[in-house]
Amino acid sequence: MQYDSKSLYDGLVASGLIVPSGEPGVFGRNAVFEDVLERFNALVGRIAQDDKAEKFTFPPTLARGIFEKSGYMKSFPQLAMGVVCFCGSAGDHPKLVQRIAEGQSYDDMMERTGVMLIPAACYPVYPSFTGTLPAGGRLVDMTHWVFRHEPSDEPTRMQAFRVREFVRVGSPDEVLEWRDMWLQRGLDLLRSLGLPAQEEVASDPFFGRVGKILANAQKEQKLKFEVVVPVISEEKPTAVCSFNYHQDYFSKTFDILQANGEQAQTACLGFGLERVCMALFKHHGFDPARWPEGVRARLWPEQA
Amino acid sequence: MQYDSKSLYDGLVASGLIVPSGEPGVFGRNAVFEDVLERFNALVGRIAQDDKAEKFTFPPTLARGIFEKSGYMKSFPQLAMGVVCFCGSAGDHPKLVQRIAEGQSYDDMMERTGVMLIPAACYPVYPSFTGTLPAGGRLVDMTHWVFRHEPSDEPTRMQAFRVREFVRVGSPDEVLEWRDMWLQRGLDLLRSLGLPAQEEVASDPFFGRVGKILANAQKEQKLKFEVVVPVISEEKPTAVCSFNYHQDYFSKTFDILQANGEQAQTACLGFGLERVCMALFKHHGFDPARWPEGVRARLWPEQA
Repeated sequence: MQYDSKSLYDGLVASGLIVPSGEPGVFGRNAVFEDVLERFNALVGRIAQDDKAEKFTFPPTLARGIFEKSGYMKSFPQLAMGVVCFCGSAGDHPKLVQRIAEGQSYDDMMERTGVMLIPAACYPVYPSFTGTLPAGGRLVDMTHWVFRHEPSDEPTRMQAFRVREFVRVGSPDEVLEWRDMWLQRGLDLLRSLGLPAQEEVASDPFFGRVGKILANAQKEQKLKFEVVVPVISEEKPTAVCSFNYHQDYFSKTFDILQANGEQAQTACLGFGLERVCMALFKHHGFDPARWPEGVRARLWPEQA
Repeated sequence: MQYDSKSLYDGLVASGLIVPSGEPGVFGRNAVFEDVLERFNALVGRIAQDDKAEKFTFPPTLARGIFEKSGYMKSFPQLAMGVVCFCGSAGDHPKLVQRIAEGQSYDDMMERTGVMLIPAACYPVYPSFTGTLPAGGRLVDMTHWVFRHEPSDEPTRMQAFRVREFVRVGSPDEVLEWRDMWLQRGLDLLRSLGLPAQEEVASDPFFGRVGKILANAQKEQKLKFEVVVPVISEEKPTAVCSFNYHQDYFSKTFDILQANGEQAQTACLGFGLERVCMALFKHHGFDPARWPEGVRARLWPEQA
């Protein structure tokens, strides 16, 4: 199989699966793309069913105070997306309109608002754990739009995409056992869909020179794993599922205690839903009606 | 029935249906809330089924050029939400981190990006119509998160919410006939769910003094209708479905022609999904298991 970014992007566009918008990493998805995405997400739901996670849905914007408290601007400032608004008077408005008409900057007329865009599906949930957990901890299930400022023509590198994410909070043993179980589940799931999935020790894109040290420490301690599949490159396969063990980072930040009064720990895992779809289109073709029977039976079981 | 904003908000929080986040108009929804929302959205889908709309999903961010071209900053600048990022170097980063730690503004270290948040579900789709339409025009179906900068403790006034929106583009007759059909469908649908829905001629919240003139003209020409239900006030019922007839505004802006070469026209309608849920919770109580049988049969037909 030949891999390259441009031919995948062009194929997705030519087959109507994605609709370009003029901004890199921002595009529409058609009904066929969405059906694959929803079917994969539903399959994850069936696998997770007996875990009895609590389901929540948070909006794509997050209180700025929570975002800042989480430390995101320390670790990944280059990816963060803040929100601004026009708070001027009716008297200021003609100037704003004129600047836009003339293609001039009007940035100085925009002010920061109280929100940021959520960078990962789990960020809104940690503050809701503040306090003492029930015995056995908690498990939360979310599907959210998330945002990264990294404009790119590479189709798997989007400015906005959806993640099906689970967050486990509890004792270190509970959290690690759950993470390890899902690492195997993730591999089994993706392989059952005919994808050559592999597990890798990974690191987050920490910013700057200090960031390189943090990333190395994260790798050494095996705090992050990814399940990767070749999508646009064989040498650098694409992460389609990511597992982060935060130890007590978020539980200290947001004051989360176990039922026994000890500090809790957290871990999360997320499937990048668009990336899974693109991996499927890459490996099985742009027309899901012609995908291998075993793959179709997994995603559309009622038609099998 | 007694109406007031605070008791509805407090009731939604106390019953766990929404999870406050510390920022007005930004909150999580629990599984019960989401189930009602998804069931209502699925019911809209069943009603629309024979219309054979094309389905698309666009991300919550939109290319800034399209947003500006659409004229939103002329009409509703007070509601618009732009996106900023940190583009500084590793050398600038310690200052950013220090400012945040000290609670100082770092707005001057953030720069505008190429995207805005979408203010209505239909904005991303108009540019994709540019060119000559097929005979009979087109009909598009979308469910999107949309964003308005109007922080408020009033639960139906959110900074981020979801809209199920349809857009019709074609000849003036095609567009108006479709709008009128849906106005009746919307009323019938909401009344079938036990909600005292009424139709109103309405106007958009155009900005400033000139905006008042635009709003009056829109009302006089009956270009906007709303289906309203009392949710937090009997005197000022809440719009849960909104119908906009744009005449040739978007088709001129984005160069959209009918198959016969004449200028096309557009109209859209959107159900405010969270508002419909809140109307149902207000009128039937916070526990859907105890809603009237007829309402449950419409939303959960397989359990009837």
